[in-house]
Amino acid sequence: MKPIAIADFPQLEEIESRIHKVQQRMIAEGLDYYLCHDPANVFYLTNFANYVHERPFIVLVPASGKLVFLMPKLEEPHVTIRSVGDIEYLHYFEFPAPEGERWSDRLQDVLKPHHRVGIESQCPIAVADANPGESIVTDIVDDVRMIKSEYEIGRIVQTCDILSEGHSKVLEMATPGQMPILIYKEAAGIMMQRLIGEQLHSNLLCSKFNAAVQPPSLSHDPHNFTDMFATIAEGGPHVTVVNGLANGYGAELERTFFCGHVPEAAKKPFDDMLEARALAYELAVPGACMSEVDRRVNELLKQKGYADNLLHRTGHSFGVTDHEGPFLAEGYEREIETNMVFSIEPGIYLPGVGGFRFSDTVLITETGNLKLTEAPDTLEGLTLPI
Amino acid sequence: MKPIAIADFPQLEEIESRIHKVQQRMIAEGLDYYLCHDPANVFYLTNFANYVHERPFIVLVPASGKLVFLMPKLEEPHVTIRSVGDIEYLHYFEFPAPEGERWSDRLQDVLKPHHRVGIESQCPIAVADANPGESIVTDIVDDVRMIKSEYEIGRIVQTCDILSEGHSKVLEMATPGQMPILIYKEAAGIMMQRLIGEQLHSNLLCSKFNAAVQPPSLSHDPHNFTDMFATIAEGGPHVTVVNGLANGYGAELERTFFCGHVPEAAKKPFDDMLEARALAYELAVPGACMSEVDRRVNELLKQKGYADNLLHRTGHSFGVTDHEGPFLAEGYEREIETNMVFSIEPGIYLPGVGGFRFSDTVLITETGNLKLTEAPDTLEGLTLPI
Repeated sequence: MKPIAIADFPQLEEIESRIHKVQQRMIAEGLDYYLCHDPANVFYLTNFANYVHERPFIVLVPASGKLVFLMPKLEEPHVTIRSVGDIEYLHYFEFPAPEGERWSDRLQDVLKPHHRVGIESQCPIAVADANPGESIVTDIVDDVRMIKSEYEIGRIVQTCDILSEGHSKVLEMATPGQMPILIYKEAAGIMMQRLIGEQLHSNLLCSKFNAAVQPPSLSHDPHNFTDMFATIAEGGPHVTVVNGLANGYGAELERTFFCGHVPEAAKKPFDDMLEARALAYELAVPGACMSEVDRRVNELLKQKGYADNLLHRTGHSFGVTDHEGPFLAEGYEREIETNMVFSIEPGIYLPGVGGFRFSDTVLITETGNLKLTEAPDTLEGLTLPI
Repeated sequence: MKPIAIADFPQLEEIESRIHKVQQRMIAEGLDYYLCHDPANVFYLTNFANYVHERPFIVLVPASGKLVFLMPKLEEPHVTIRSVGDIEYLHYFEFPAPEGERWSDRLQDVLKPHHRVGIESQCPIAVADANPGESIVTDIVDDVRMIKSEYEIGRIVQTCDILSEGHSKVLEMATPGQMPILIYKEAAGIMMQRLIGEQLHSNLLCSKFNAAVQPPSLSHDPHNFTDMFATIAEGGPHVTVVNGLANGYGAELERTFFCGHVPEAAKKPFDDMLEARALAYELAVPGACMSEVDRRVNELLKQKGYADNLLHRTGHSFGVTDHEGPFLAEGYEREIETNMVFSIEPGIYLPGVGGFRFSDTVLITETGNLKLTEAPDTLEGLTLPI
């Protein structure tokens, strides 16, 4: 049974449990501090969503005890409104600043030359260089984020429910001649209104919804959104791209659909994509190797003659972003575990015909997996009346 | 006279001139390659706007000859639609990937152990570590971006014209009881429609418009947007925050305004802010030191008793972002030059009273400076009828 959606912000216990997991890993790796600069990691540990600009926001996690959150003075009053947990706030006046008043000076009030400090592999050089201690590149927070708590699953379910409603609106509006940009406006508006209705204190800095449609002229090139005025056509394949972040929790939902009729050249690739998708669902269970799931799905598609028509891996994860690790990708040797969340989205891309891809947000359960997004799954259900 | 707005995408000559400046600096610093990972720098050199995710987009600038643009295979077909210039495209299949097929393997097809490679100070550790050559941290592209070409000025003027129209709409709609979120929706929609009308091939990946209003209950805390339902009040000070990117070029426009009447406690700080602003315009001319401009503006405000009510520097720059260096900030020892573009926005923040700030996008000219954004500048013009 699908877990219940949660719209509330996290309680102290949820945040403390995340920090505890990070600190356990830090102790195992012999670290004194962990330095978070990635806004996704900062949000995960504090519930405060910043965006990256020239004034750094840095969370320092000590091996035991409370977080230190370094930020511009300008931000402190509203950081304390959103953040959850027992946090020591530290600020610098501005960037740039005179010597002695810089963010790097405040960082060095906490970090000392004898400290072993874990840093993210995505940490900017300038931030790493401001660490007076020994820098050890280790993605501890990213790793801890891979297994979702009950609360996080509830939040992702909320996002999935909102996307499922937005996706219904996309299919409802998709008639030949319609402009995807108008569908986007309507469907994104519905999703945002629903989010705000479910959470009156919604944080628009970490909430956004997309609802794109690629018509058959573009759908073979899955990230091509260069023609705003390309209209929905008779036939297909069209591909929907509905995704977003609801108060910081991400998901996605995509379908291949047709208007009125299914072109002859689209029938076999549609069925072949469905077969690859069914195989991916069969393989994506606890204990399986992520690399192997992708390899076997690709192998099937290659056997069917699509070696030159593959453009991406089988899936990626979600959490406090709508695109993150772990990945169902060849070369990524990691075991699937219960309470991970993946997109499952093998795709086939045929220039002159179009793109074939379904994507859902899928929870790994103890016994297999559970699709959290809802949309038609069959050719009949996706051949819209005109 | 204000330069003419430009809505067209850059020509080859414009892009080549930028690359030439970067290569001149590279030669002076003895570099074989410069590695760009920051999407703003990638856009500046190629006209292709990507967003950062786990699949890197990297531009390698050689000391002479053409750019090498490394990207996921998935992106290549539409990168070549947007990009301008004589570029060698190189792709990797996916991230993650098996050994030998990784983005870092392709990077090492170009960069060799004997190369001296310039990298951005914001470059992620993982990218810097994939460079087999010697990494030299030097922000050459960021530096070249500081002086705008005639074309860039025209593009920023376009953004300013759009923001000026959006800002008029904000003031028009600002009546007591109105919700800023509804003003935002209307004004942002008008700005986006105007942009698309002026450029039918607009790139929505690098176009966005904000039109926020902080009511007096929040305006003392200039980045506080936590209460979506706080309404416009009688009196003030309210502060508008109108900014954005029009096909990749940024600007901003902000005003303090009142509805119906000006509270007694707001009159002096409003006038004092105007005096500080006038001083900043007087000082922000070619040859002045940026640090000194901020120091003298802050000194004036401190003399007037606002030492505890300052939250930020006098200004920042714009270009292919809406927030970048150089900065009018104490501690930033750099000379103002002709064809730089700054915000000029000294602010005063009084808890219990509100915020006082005007911000405009200002071009440094040979003889002084020129305000590119347009909105009322006087207390009378900003005391709206109710």
